[in-house]
Amino acid sequence: MNQALEGVRILDLTRVLAGPFATMILADMGAEVIKIEMPKTGDDSRQFGPYLNEESAYFMSINRNKKSITMNLKVKESKDLFLEMVKEADIVIENYRPGTMEKLGLGYEEIKKVNPKIIYAAASGFGHTGPYSKRAAYDAVVQAMGGIMSITGELGGRPTRVGPSIGDITAGLYTAIGILAALNYRNKTGIGQKVDVAMLDCQVSILENAIARYLVTGVSPKPIGNRHSSIIPFESFETADGEVMIAAGNDALWKKLCEAIERTELAEDERFITNPLRAENYNELRPLIAEPLKEKTTKEWLSILDKFGVPNGPINNMEDVINDPQVLAREMIVEVDHPKAGKMKMLGVPIKMSETQGSIKSPAPLLGQHTTEVLKNIAGLTDEEIETLREKGGI
Amino acid sequence: MNQALEGVRILDLTRVLAGPFATMILADMGAEVIKIEMPKTGDDSRQFGPYLNEESAYFMSINRNKKSITMNLKVKESKDLFLEMVKEADIVIENYRPGTMEKLGLGYEEIKKVNPKIIYAAASGFGHTGPYSKRAAYDAVVQAMGGIMSITGELGGRPTRVGPSIGDITAGLYTAIGILAALNYRNKTGIGQKVDVAMLDCQVSILENAIARYLVTGVSPKPIGNRHSSIIPFESFETADGEVMIAAGNDALWKKLCEAIERTELAEDERFITNPLRAENYNELRPLIAEPLKEKTTKEWLSILDKFGVPNGPINNMEDVINDPQVLAREMIVEVDHPKAGKMKMLGVPIKMSETQGSIKSPAPLLGQHTTEVLKNIAGLTDEEIETLREKGGI
Repeated sequence: MNQALEGVRILDLTRVLAGPFATMILADMGAEVIKIEMPKTGDDSRQFGPYLNEESAYFMSINRNKKSITMNLKVKESKDLFLEMVKEADIVIENYRPGTMEKLGLGYEEIKKVNPKIIYAAASGFGHTGPYSKRAAYDAVVQAMGGIMSITGELGGRPTRVGPSIGDITAGLYTAIGILAALNYRNKTGIGQKVDVAMLDCQVSILENAIARYLVTGVSPKPIGNRHSSIIPFESFETADGEVMIAAGNDALWKKLCEAIERTELAEDERFITNPLRAENYNELRPLIAEPLKEKTTKEWLSILDKFGVPNGPINNMEDVINDPQVLAREMIVEVDHPKAGKMKMLGVPIKMSETQGSIKSPAPLLGQHTTEVLKNIAGLTDEEIETLREKGGI
Repeated sequence: MNQALEGVRILDLTRVLAGPFATMILADMGAEVIKIEMPKTGDDSRQFGPYLNEESAYFMSINRNKKSITMNLKVKESKDLFLEMVKEADIVIENYRPGTMEKLGLGYEEIKKVNPKIIYAAASGFGHTGPYSKRAAYDAVVQAMGGIMSITGELGGRPTRVGPSIGDITAGLYTAIGILAALNYRNKTGIGQKVDVAMLDCQVSILENAIARYLVTGVSPKPIGNRHSSIIPFESFETADGEVMIAAGNDALWKKLCEAIERTELAEDERFITNPLRAENYNELRPLIAEPLKEKTTKEWLSILDKFGVPNGPINNMEDVINDPQVLAREMIVEVDHPKAGKMKMLGVPIKMSETQGSIKSPAPLLGQHTTEVLKNIAGLTDEEIETLREKGGI
């Protein structure tokens, strides 16, 4: 089967998470991603635990489907070679701190000179413009500054970091979108461009209604635990042996919930008949639902709530997720055979396409695994030239 | 200035958040998004508070740049008209529960018959395949089932919902990516396809290293508060008047942090010299950093840490975010003039493109604001035909 991005060549200078996440998505859909890493050390995340046979599970999980070549861009010969390769590429992507590529003489203006059709994507903490542009950022800094922590956490508790590195990942997703939109424009016009994505901008972009609520009320929202800010009941409740998430998103579902918990009188209660009334009388309502929910186990409630058509779910941990029948049926857990780490499971491809389904075609590369192949095929180097460059520390 | 997706026409049947978020991104970049809403009621989120002059700030924040037409697809004439419009469209997108479009006689197979080149995108809770496919999902359910809650929250605390509806938003981002990849494939081959995105799959896809950690260790990770799972120190600390986020992502930054807090002896301390050692001796290390950080205010620390080059940030609430100099410099807060709500601020466009910058060209539409315009121009209806359809309840 064909893949959606077959024939698209990406020179990938990104490291760690935000950039590699973007190029993983593109590689999963068939783009040829040539990951360019520092000789000897490689992507920092090759050192991140946990390890499988001394290979980083972290690195392997976000670098499948990519080729790895080593290249020290501070060595003039390598820099020249890189610019030669730019001529044969569609996309260059990097997630250095703004200014780093310019110092190497490889900023967008230089890249564009050798290939005006290139799409140059940069993912950085704060973006390529503005007063914080040159500052370093990590996910935790962006989560803190971007506001998401201020609305995540226990009711009355302190701002809480989102478990996964959502600051990096969101930037990766937006970078992939920007690249694909630029590619569409280039397909039609032949014109390339620079795509500049900041982790902070992306973090702010996913605040949803918190921004609107602040702008209308003038009050910054705070953590409210597992409740929804305005829909009720829409939160987790204790059961006899754990918790269950219930999302009664409208008045009809509220009635169904009352039936499921055998409290049909609540469905008729005038204090709770509409969502605005349920919000107003939340403190009276909550214990009336919470009490009966404590009487059965989570498993029992999942089955009862399903029967009554009330949206519900267990609060799954990683073990539950990996064994969930729906997750498995959607091929979201796949096994990959890595030459050093051996067989390992990782996440599948979440975008399901009827004509061009993405897939895992190869495990994450060893450092420099494709250096010779790529330098011969794309840059046209001979074995001798490759050897000379290796001796100079260029690859 | 041109926009990246100019000339791309989208028939948008989505409601509430996941789908509308995807089409907002595409509309921001210049796609013509024709939002098709139920006559009289429209998108459910038009009823979501908070309100500005009786207009939903929530709805307005994610439906800018779109046109609104009303259409009841259960009325035969409207359904036929919709299929006529499919012939003139590039993309159809919906976020109904799987099976709903088929019941209307408008599933992908039917749509494809009138326009084989169409890209049909469906965003749903659990996807169009698998045992849970037909179940309803809301963000809270997907956050619970997808594992993110199990690794978010206070150390030793209960699983915690992420403040914004990250389950919906992530699905919106992946749907936009899927559509753009399919568009690239169609540009090259002329072949359309169906793109099927599940909120649960997307939620699982952003779990980052939690999955890898479980697969390697066999232990499901739990909430660990504001710490990073493996990098140390990488968390928030109390100051004299609040908190500060510090991200010392490598050994060099650790040394700089020791200098910044005037504890240079720690930089030489053999218990803390590498990240694995800092992780092993975390319980001894934390108080040694936490103590001095309590002695100055957050503002003082931000300035000192900047001076020493240690990545840091305040924990901003919505008011802070909206007034942040970088957020403002990046035009991430823009003012839009809405015919009913008046002037309102909303989030800008996070993907910065040098040739085709996205922008807010029009505020969110009133319900059915563009019905006449669209039906005349795209479907070629006369005033009389439009009137007849209106009388039948079709629009």
